[in-house]
Amino acid sequence: MAFNKLYQFSILNALMDGVADEGINVSTMLESGDHGLGTFKHMDGEMVVLDGIAYQMRQDGSILVAGPETVVPFAMVTRFQPAHISHLSLSSKDALDLHIWEHLPNARNLFLAIRIDGQFEYITARTVGKQEYPGECLVDVGKRQVVRTLSNTKGSLVGFYSPGFSHGLSVAGYHLHFIDDDRRNGGHMLDFKSGNVQISLSPIARVELELPQSSEFNSARLLADAHKIREVEG
Amino acid sequence: MAFNKLYQFSILNALMDGVADEGINVSTMLESGDHGLGTFKHMDGEMVVLDGIAYQMRQDGSILVAGPETVVPFAMVTRFQPAHISHLSLSSKDALDLHIWEHLPNARNLFLAIRIDGQFEYITARTVGKQEYPGECLVDVGKRQVVRTLSNTKGSLVGFYSPGFSHGLSVAGYHLHFIDDDRRNGGHMLDFKSGNVQISLSPIARVELELPQSSEFNSARLLADAHKIREVEG
Repeated sequence: MAFNKLYQFSILNALMDGVADEGINVSTMLESGDHGLGTFKHMDGEMVVLDGIAYQMRQDGSILVAGPETVVPFAMVTRFQPAHISHLSLSSKDALDLHIWEHLPNARNLFLAIRIDGQFEYITARTVGKQEYPGECLVDVGKRQVVRTLSNTKGSLVGFYSPGFSHGLSVAGYHLHFIDDDRRNGGHMLDFKSGNVQISLSPIARVELELPQSSEFNSARLLADAHKIREVEG
Repeated sequence: MAFNKLYQFSILNALMDGVADEGINVSTMLESGDHGLGTFKHMDGEMVVLDGIAYQMRQDGSILVAGPETVVPFAMVTRFQPAHISHLSLSSKDALDLHIWEHLPNARNLFLAIRIDGQFEYITARTVGKQEYPGECLVDVGKRQVVRTLSNTKGSLVGFYSPGFSHGLSVAGYHLHFIDDDRRNGGHMLDFKSGNVQISLSPIARVELELPQSSEFNSARLLADAHKIREVEG
């Protein structure tokens, strides 16, 4: 796989519709990237892929290294080679946004791979639980999410910016998962304030989208609107 | 390029926003597929790619073989290997729709490559003219389209079905361009009734999307809604 090409399996709206029974396995996914995020069979927790290792961050707070056969119904990964690296502290998500468009003004309609390593004053992160029945939609699974705030932690925020037109395929805007350096805490980032961090970015102009061929996927509506997605992936 | 993988350059909503100044060239495009459709710099006519040759079908009715350096701001092509072939006559677009879902009930949310060769009682096809100024949007360019009805013609309908969730990336539903066997008439198909034809189909589960890196693309809104797209591409 070329550097900074996004490989995506399935689409976000399939999760919105509860399509999470089948997928690729972790070892296949890791052939296409060493950086990214996703979820697991039955939406059992948040996935972060960091330096080629896929971590499963579960609702109970436990974090496991996902085995090669673990089933992944949705993932976005890239073989990340940063094109821009800078060092600063970010007072908020908005500060990250300003920083990015200052440095990459001509990438608004591209995807971006993003990694932020270092010290965080706080990170608020959520982890979703598992579907209670096959096909339970993400909004309902999300109602049982656990939100934790980590203070004065060191770790990595890993993920992507996706352009507005890709809404429904992915989460338009920022989608970042956090894991701390001890690999003991993490989840889907809701809010943060950093100390000194290194911000690594790369524009992505090539996307390889692989669609599930299951009847579960092919019978889904897949048309959740932006408002619904923000409600659960905000 | 693997068989039946869709390669797409740019997105339909970029054309909707008039982004048609720059692109890949025909020879690069043909490395990724021998079957497909698209348009040319400044939306100067309809493109159909048939058996590895790209034809430019212009508003004045002329048809040219597009040279290797010709600029393509939007294209969808695949290296087509039919998975299903059947022979019948189709009384309408709706009959094609019924035929497809009878034979491929489990591909609703995939893309399909479609080719229909043979006798047509009639085909109504349009060709768009060129942008009158840089950035003129597709809806306005489409107002100057020329619609022709060809009767008792032999030729090929070439293109794709795109799933509903891909709206904005491509034309959700059917998008087929026609060219006759003499390569003298053709355009974007609006309606048809066939005689005996061969229908070749293949599901597509892998899409490689390449986004333009131009400032023209990156400053566009890219958010035209389904209604607007149907108005001009319906």
